Amino acid sequence: MHVTELIRKKRDTAELQPAEIEFLINGYTAGQIPHYQMSAWLMAVVLRGMTRAELAALTSAMLHSGEVLDLSELAGPKVDKHSTGGVGDKTSLIIAPIVAAAGVFVPMVSGRGLGHTGGTLDKLESITGFNVNLSAADFRRVLSTCGCVLVGQTAEIAPADKKIYALRDVTGTVESPYLICASIMSKKMAEGIDALVLDVKTGNGAFMKSEQDAAFLAELMVETGERLGKRVVALLTDMDQPLGRAVGNSLEVAECLEIMEGNGPADLRELCLVLAAWMLYLAKRVATLEEGKTLAAEMISSGQAHEKFREIVALQGGDVGAIDDPQRLPQAQNKIDIPSPASGFVASMLCEQLGTASVLLGGGRERKEDSIDPAVGMMIHKKVGDQVTAKEPLCTIYYNSAERLERARPLIEQSYKIADAPPKKQRPLIHRVIGE
Amino acid sequence: MHVTELIRKKRDTAELQPAEIEFLINGYTAGQIPHYQMSAWLMAVVLRGMTRAELAALTSAMLHSGEVLDLSELAGPKVDKHSTGGVGDKTSLIIAPIVAAAGVFVPMVSGRGLGHTGGTLDKLESITGFNVNLSAADFRRVLSTCGCVLVGQTAEIAPADKKIYALRDVTGTVESPYLICASIMSKKMAEGIDALVLDVKTGNGAFMKSEQDAAFLAELMVETGERLGKRVVALLTDMDQPLGRAVGNSLEVAECLEIMEGNGPADLRELCLVLAAWMLYLAKRVATLEEGKTLAAEMISSGQAHEKFREIVALQGGDVGAIDDPQRLPQAQNKIDIPSPASGFVASMLCEQLGTASVLLGGGRERKEDSIDPAVGMMIHKKVGDQVTAKEPLCTIYYNSAERLERARPLIEQSYKIADAPPKKQRPLIHRVIGE
Repeated sequence: MHVTELIRKKRDTAELQPAEIEFLINGYTAGQIPHYQMSAWLMAVVLRGMTRAELAALTSAMLHSGEVLDLSELAGPKVDKHSTGGVGDKTSLIIAPIVAAAGVFVPMVSGRGLGHTGGTLDKLESITGFNVNLSAADFRRVLSTCGCVLVGQTAEIAPADKKIYALRDVTGTVESPYLICASIMSKKMAEGIDALVLDVKTGNGAFMKSEQDAAFLAELMVETGERLGKRVVALLTDMDQPLGRAVGNSLEVAECLEIMEGNGPADLRELCLVLAAWMLYLAKRVATLEEGKTLAAEMISSGQAHEKFREIVALQGGDVGAIDDPQRLPQAQNKIDIPSPASGFVASMLCEQLGTASVLLGGGRERKEDSIDPAVGMMIHKKVGDQVTAKEPLCTIYYNSAERLERARPLIEQSYKIADAPPKKQRPLIHRVIGE
Repeated sequence: MHVTELIRKKRDTAELQPAEIEFLINGYTAGQIPHYQMSAWLMAVVLRGMTRAELAALTSAMLHSGEVLDLSELAGPKVDKHSTGGVGDKTSLIIAPIVAAAGVFVPMVSGRGLGHTGGTLDKLESITGFNVNLSAADFRRVLSTCGCVLVGQTAEIAPADKKIYALRDVTGTVESPYLICASIMSKKMAEGIDALVLDVKTGNGAFMKSEQDAAFLAELMVETGERLGKRVVALLTDMDQPLGRAVGNSLEVAECLEIMEGNGPADLRELCLVLAAWMLYLAKRVATLEEGKTLAAEMISSGQAHEKFREIVALQGGDVGAIDDPQRLPQAQNKIDIPSPASGFVASMLCEQLGTASVLLGGGRERKEDSIDPAVGMMIHKKVGDQVTAKEPLCTIYYNSAERLERARPLIEQSYKIADAPPKKQRPLIHRVIGE
């Protein structure tokens, strides 16, 4: 097989065979195929797309480039959830304990903040001592002990994806639904799970701004998962405004605890219940979605989800005192309200801009090597459709540096649009469900 | 400027500014931009194309990546011709002496055989001692002494093209009219010429098989040349069968000498006269094409072209004895006729296949490091439209290795299609003229 021929095939829209795709991925991962050939092939994929069979073969090759977890020693289904990333998107911390408390294994492998979006690992690390880098043995021990484990990706999982992602990042080949799908699904399929719920965000705070693009990615991921023998469903959910009220790492952990205590914002609670219901349904723990939602709500009202989260934190070395008393989570030294410039209704919010503001406050990384300030962020008091009077606080900024505040504040102020009347149409929380 | 941004711009069909293209080309040539970024950008160019302004900027950046010859010390116009490559395409050896004999400088920089096509340098080197690798000083001395010089590309000319071409060769990015145009024109524009005649081949023996593709490349080259301030014209000429009768290096040199002696095949003579006429016209040596053709014919009939060629050979170290007596050119040890399988008419010839057969005989390189056997090749006796009786020789193969003969012979036999009637329509020798 000649690499140049395979590049030309893709360039000229011919379909590559699974063996040809494996040859490319294995050769590149092993360092036998140089970066410059892979980047040319990736650009051809970006501009020519892939057939569903090619995409499944690519995902499979990337998945099998490293360790594939075998969790068959644990009796019972294993389910995970993956979000494409958003602002205030903190559902993982709530769903994992709910589903584990209901008796389904959740081996959850998460990521860090990317661009304007937050990351589950960064949020967890705002709990002092919480260790997201477990050895393989500890991963199995925590999972088998409490039914759930919350970790980052290890070097052994899908090394082809790591190498390809680094190359895509510097060759203008990130923005391809096919390559995004293969990257996400190869990692998720390597976790030893039976089923997967995908939360595909759409709106001005998502990576896929348009519903059409988000739906296309969702369809690719669902079909790829099914071709690889897993039950997969994708929910297209709204990211035209932050989810819940908290944006920023320790603020979001505190909000998750509120939800698990039976309180907290309605939109966040609702999305968590629906996502958890789908996980329980795909795991066959319940016969209907309805039943799943009821069971998830019971896990909250009975305190079992909260107790499960406490158990996970303890097993992964975190300070359980912070779970019992969220005031022990890192607290910002200063806070300041952003007043509404006028009376009226919140017409819209620039959600990506709010995410960027949180990064500028120190809640995310501007460069890869930056460290994160877990305490900073914002609490959103007014969301789209809410009525507001002039000078009433739209949100409160939590900050530790006046200089950072000055960079972030204009972005936050300008992200709100106040109008005389409420918006004619409210966007739904869940736009569509794809799969199953 | 960020390379990744420039790759994304091209990927997303935005127009790059000249400064951005220069940044890319200069950075890559200097080794500051890695291969993998350049190959991704090249693939984006292959699939997205370029605007005419981008193409001119790319050509200019590549042209200025190295030495640009200044021949202004030579009083009078300097003109060159470039062919996109064919089988039996030997016009350079005839045209250069004709035009130089008529008083116009011809600083001709040529290439070697590529794929199934022959190369002017390989043909010249079948004359013992002929040196195509002159120093800059010798280049100027030969050109000023006899008005013509026939050499290969030096490392100083358009180094960006050399580096980019090597990368394109292994990344599936050769087949782009834009990149082909920039590669050809950057080298030609660096020669210090005032005008250029392009011979763009079309037909089954050309790189551009379809007339549409050939015309598109021709238009790009003419417009790019004009944007860079040169007079450029492109002739679309036929390559559905070999040009003339000789295919193979020393056989072709002998055929060129025949033409310069006033004999030889009519198609080859006609094309040489027209190409030379265009060179004389663009150089303003003549007022009309007609006049140019007459002058070119006079250079042959008076013996001045032949004498000029003899002079060039002498100045570049070649054996002038071989010019006076072509039997001194390398001769193959064996020859064999290919008989016609039936009586009828030659309906068509697979011209690329004949070129490949010549390579297999040893007349070209299968791998870059191969050496060439100057003596081998074939003489075509029957061409498209010719009547033939069964067993009459279609062509004669000249060979030095029985093993090579056995590889080449089936290709030659199968390239002829004999039919009961002559083809209804003969393709013209010159399809179209683009420019001026």
